Amino acid sequence: MSLVVAGFIVRWILKQDQGTAGMQSIASAIKTGAEAYLARQYKTISVIAVIFTVIFAAAIRDPSNTWLGVDTAGGFLLGALCSNLAGYIAMYVSVRSNIRAARGAMSSLDRALKIAFRGGIVFGLGVVCLSLIGISSLFLLFNGDPRLIVGFAFGASFAALFAQLGGGIYTKAADMSADLVGKVEAGIPEDDPRNPAVIADLVGDNVGDIAGRGADLFESITAENIGAMLLAIAPAVYALYGLNGLIFPLLARGFGLIGTLVGTFFVYTRKNEDPFKSLTRGLIVTGVICAVGFYALTNLLLNGDMGYFYASLVGIVAAILVAWITDYYTSYSKRPTLDISKSSESGAAPGIATGLAVGMESTGLFIIVIGVAILLAFELGNGFQPFSASFDIASSAFQRGIYGTAIATMGMLSVTPMVLAMDGFGPITDNAAGILEMSGVSEDARSVSDRLDSVGNTTKALTKGYGVASAALSAFLLFSAFLEVAGLKGIDLSRPEVFIGAMIGATLIFMFSSLAIRAVGKTSAVMIVEIRRQFKEIPGIMTGQAKPDYSRCVDISTKAALKNMVVPSLLVVLTPITVGLVLGAEAVGGLLMVGTLVGVLMALFMNNGGAALDNAKKYIEAGNLGGKNSPAHAATVVGDTLGDPLKDTAGPSLHVVVKLLNTITLALAPLFILALLH
Amino acid sequence: MSLVVAGFIVRWILKQDQGTAGMQSIASAIKTGAEAYLARQYKTISVIAVIFTVIFAAAIRDPSNTWLGVDTAGGFLLGALCSNLAGYIAMYVSVRSNIRAARGAMSSLDRALKIAFRGGIVFGLGVVCLSLIGISSLFLLFNGDPRLIVGFAFGASFAALFAQLGGGIYTKAADMSADLVGKVEAGIPEDDPRNPAVIADLVGDNVGDIAGRGADLFESITAENIGAMLLAIAPAVYALYGLNGLIFPLLARGFGLIGTLVGTFFVYTRKNEDPFKSLTRGLIVTGVICAVGFYALTNLLLNGDMGYFYASLVGIVAAILVAWITDYYTSYSKRPTLDISKSSESGAAPGIATGLAVGMESTGLFIIVIGVAILLAFELGNGFQPFSASFDIASSAFQRGIYGTAIATMGMLSVTPMVLAMDGFGPITDNAAGILEMSGVSEDARSVSDRLDSVGNTTKALTKGYGVASAALSAFLLFSAFLEVAGLKGIDLSRPEVFIGAMIGATLIFMFSSLAIRAVGKTSAVMIVEIRRQFKEIPGIMTGQAKPDYSRCVDISTKAALKNMVVPSLLVVLTPITVGLVLGAEAVGGLLMVGTLVGVLMALFMNNGGAALDNAKKYIEAGNLGGKNSPAHAATVVGDTLGDPLKDTAGPSLHVVVKLLNTITLALAPLFILALLH
Repeated sequence: MSLVVAGFIVRWILKQDQGTAGMQSIASAIKTGAEAYLARQYKTISVIAVIFTVIFAAAIRDPSNTWLGVDTAGGFLLGALCSNLAGYIAMYVSVRSNIRAARGAMSSLDRALKIAFRGGIVFGLGVVCLSLIGISSLFLLFNGDPRLIVGFAFGASFAALFAQLGGGIYTKAADMSADLVGKVEAGIPEDDPRNPAVIADLVGDNVGDIAGRGADLFESITAENIGAMLLAIAPAVYALYGLNGLIFPLLARGFGLIGTLVGTFFVYTRKNEDPFKSLTRGLIVTGVICAVGFYALTNLLLNGDMGYFYASLVGIVAAILVAWITDYYTSYSKRPTLDISKSSESGAAPGIATGLAVGMESTGLFIIVIGVAILLAFELGNGFQPFSASFDIASSAFQRGIYGTAIATMGMLSVTPMVLAMDGFGPITDNAAGILEMSGVSEDARSVSDRLDSVGNTTKALTKGYGVASAALSAFLLFSAFLEVAGLKGIDLSRPEVFIGAMIGATLIFMFSSLAIRAVGKTSAVMIVEIRRQFKEIPGIMTGQAKPDYSRCVDISTKAALKNMVVPSLLVVLTPITVGLVLGAEAVGGLLMVGTLVGVLMALFMNNGGAALDNAKKYIEAGNLGGKNSPAHAATVVGDTLGDPLKDTAGPSLHVVVKLLNTITLALAPLFILALLH
Repeated sequence: MSLVVAGFIVRWILKQDQGTAGMQSIASAIKTGAEAYLARQYKTISVIAVIFTVIFAAAIRDPSNTWLGVDTAGGFLLGALCSNLAGYIAMYVSVRSNIRAARGAMSSLDRALKIAFRGGIVFGLGVVCLSLIGISSLFLLFNGDPRLIVGFAFGASFAALFAQLGGGIYTKAADMSADLVGKVEAGIPEDDPRNPAVIADLVGDNVGDIAGRGADLFESITAENIGAMLLAIAPAVYALYGLNGLIFPLLARGFGLIGTLVGTFFVYTRKNEDPFKSLTRGLIVTGVICAVGFYALTNLLLNGDMGYFYASLVGIVAAILVAWITDYYTSYSKRPTLDISKSSESGAAPGIATGLAVGMESTGLFIIVIGVAILLAFELGNGFQPFSASFDIASSAFQRGIYGTAIATMGMLSVTPMVLAMDGFGPITDNAAGILEMSGVSEDARSVSDRLDSVGNTTKALTKGYGVASAALSAFLLFSAFLEVAGLKGIDLSRPEVFIGAMIGATLIFMFSSLAIRAVGKTSAVMIVEIRRQFKEIPGIMTGQAKPDYSRCVDISTKAALKNMVVPSLLVVLTPITVGLVLGAEAVGGLLMVGTLVGVLMALFMNNGGAALDNAKKYIEAGNLGGKNSPAHAATVVGDTLGDPLKDTAGPSLHVVVKLLNTITLALAPLFILALLH
């Protein structure tokens, strides 16, 4: 049903007016660039995925199920394919909505908002539907055994890592080099058509923020759904609810889709209403419908055990609190970002130091919220049994408690399609603003698109917070699923090999972050050379008499991003496999748990620190502390540029790394049990 | 014996010439400032320590030993006192050696090197002797029960945290604000007498790099000695070696002192020899003597079980490898730092991004070395028994293995007095260079002192690497000591309350780092206002006709640093206590282990990233990539300023935090066993 509605929305979008010929030629350049990049990226991913598929099919062996390897490998390949498809659909819609939203901005704020938001809705519905259809089909195919579906989740996160990292490198390398050469050296404004990298920058929004994020959330909801289903087969839970416990997560997701469809009708702006308000209204409606859905499902499927309903509310409330924390730490009307702006008056270094400190500080409240949510959902799940009774993984109190945390995660994730729509909205309006700027249409339309663009920046930051929150909340349920699958009784950090696994897990996060940040640097170094060359060798660029060669920049960005995404991604895939094969399942459990924890904290640090540095600049640009072109402004420009690779490449890729560690260990647990050291 | 030698060296130093009256007045201003700061700092620490002593004496109860609370609290107070004393001695010598080393530089390189190095030797011998005397006395007092000495280690790390953090804030706030206003705004060179903050900056070297680092390493060696002794009472080890196993760590430390005394004679420069070479020669001699000592001790005390001798060599080799890694990542002749210099050509942001990436990358090789060292020492300790046989903490293979890692840590730490001497050498020459610069003596003497100063920068970076390495290597032995004391069988991360403890531990590191970085920012903000005021209100400062009011800057720095050190330190002390009291001993074990791991990684990231950013600037100042005053140089100046609070405040304080987490849990384990949730 959601897919049909999405189809109708796509038809509606395609019917909208596409504006002037100038606008169309820009939009078509963006479209061509984005399609060419994705085609090559998916080719690279496919080649690597096929190699892994063959290895998994051959290597994974289990005497009790001779087909385990083939089943897992098949699921892996299907998951990777679906992830690519989800990213492609998202990009397909966004490169068609951007130009129409730009044209819409020439008519009214409401028109532009609707087109951009509906583009986002297609993105949200498409991603969630694909995940649901994939899981449900495999669930039916494998006669309701969720252990055979984990390959699908692994494939999804495998492809997502490459997509998010590659897209993230592309978008930030283009952005940084366009800024460094265009803004700083040549002194031309952002999105100026004289900048050779401007099209690459706009392409980046589509391949990074749209296709990358789409793949990220596709694997998130897939892994968490399958994790929740795995916990439903724990003896104590299965004895109570049977198959109903397994179907619950799938139906909960269905309610999320229905809620989103209804919520869509509440997104409109009357007169001069703040567009962010109207998006929030849509989200609230979706949340309420989801809550009602959980109430109904708890009664229908879980014998009316209201603890689980309350656990789902815990998840929804935690999502709201995390959004509030993210807003507090990154909005420029609040203390932390104001501090960055103020210390930038003493120079770039004090500003950046404060920015890094703000990013680190933002982990505190966040972890408190997630910690309390896990504990509360755990206790709600087992009916507030004394802690000491739930300490054994084989106990009913533990198994029911963990199922409670799974339901809380389902609650948090129920509004995903709507959140994705709000997220997709951002890059679409960003692109629309760029198209308007480049084609030089009326100031009025641009002020409309700028207003939407700034709302898009906020929703983008909130989605990232939501992504990390779901990763953190689901971590504990995915660990327990791993214990279940690997047949472990616990992860004892005081064993030397487990502690070494934990050391490797934590270090992996630092190494990956380093490689991701440097990949952006390396890619933009190539870009910078090319942009400088064009400014020098093509006469008349600066006067507007000659057009820069946009496509060469797009091409260079594409090649460099793809080249630089491979090593960090393979590092993340091969490290846990190696540790598992050498040190065994419990050591890889240590790697998983500590790696997840450190990954979540680093992601928060980089996302929030980067966003705060960005907004500290915006605060000064709004005319405070000397305004544009003051020394404080120059200092915050440095901070913003530094924040870019942190918040848009390394940080978001870490969400995927965390999930990938989970799915890789789940899928390959049968291999790790046979490790060298056992 | 070492103390007597130290006394003779002090007498020798005091006999040296003190140079011109101008130099003496500067040195005396530094001395007054440093003494005033330390007096106030120790007052603050004492007040807080006494409050905690009373609480511990009242709260710690154990039916089998009614005096446990009083014993622990007494040890705590004594440890804090000894730590303060160690810091004070170190500062006492350094503020007297700096002026004499400055005068020595006017005669010859060898003379200046000898004075500065001998000042460092007093520092090294004093710190190690105090620790040995404290532990040995308590060991005799408590009839050989090491469990009653843990309070001493706790007190030492408690005082060290305040000292290292307070000193670190002081030194970097003075440094940053002197640079930002003096160099950048007023355009005067470093250490220029016209800068009102120049004396505060030189005071900072003494209270941060000398007194702070002294307290840091005092508690390091104390905690590790006591930890090793605790492991010697594990049944399997005690059955084999009895009291000898307990005395081994103390005697090993003694050999380190002897080795250092002999090594001292090898530190001299003939003709134009590189001073770094002569320091290395001294270190090698010390290392060889220590190795011989371990061979003798293994034969005498440990029944000639050569596995333990090899384990001690593992520790010594690991120390050398870590020094090599630190040098690779921070020296400007190597790839990582060169990359920073090169990317700074595109601007400050790409340079800083590369710097952060280099810091993160440096964790990889380091963790491999430490991981291999732990595993190897563990296996050497239990005679290469199969892994699966050593998985139980109650097994003989485990207990002997862990004792092997303790011996490896002793091996690494055996050269501590010599390393400390090399470390103390740095700030003394730094001060000497500053005194010469300010008093405007001959260029020749300044070039000598500059040469020693740059060697001092290298030894400082290496000592920090050594500090983190000893923290990481000893982590596993201290965890095991905690399990032993708390009577736990393991730390099972899959229990919800243990995982929450781990979450809190990891987050604590991020929060503390944030607070430490911001404390520098806050303190320097106050300083900057004062420096600007003096430039504006005191006419004739810039022409040299009027003297700036140095003492006001010193005073402001003192007050602000003390104010800003309290909250972060208390956070670190109170968090594990709260977690232990609420969630119990195993949860606090999760906090401890994951907090240690993350703390070590963050410290490496900040120390090495900051040092690499610093040296990237030095590379350009040496005339490369456009040299001084090029845009690339300006970019690296920003990077260097950002690196300062990372590498000299937050990073080194994290070593202490890691150790404090260990000693706090060891000392308060009897309380945590009675936690709320049990």
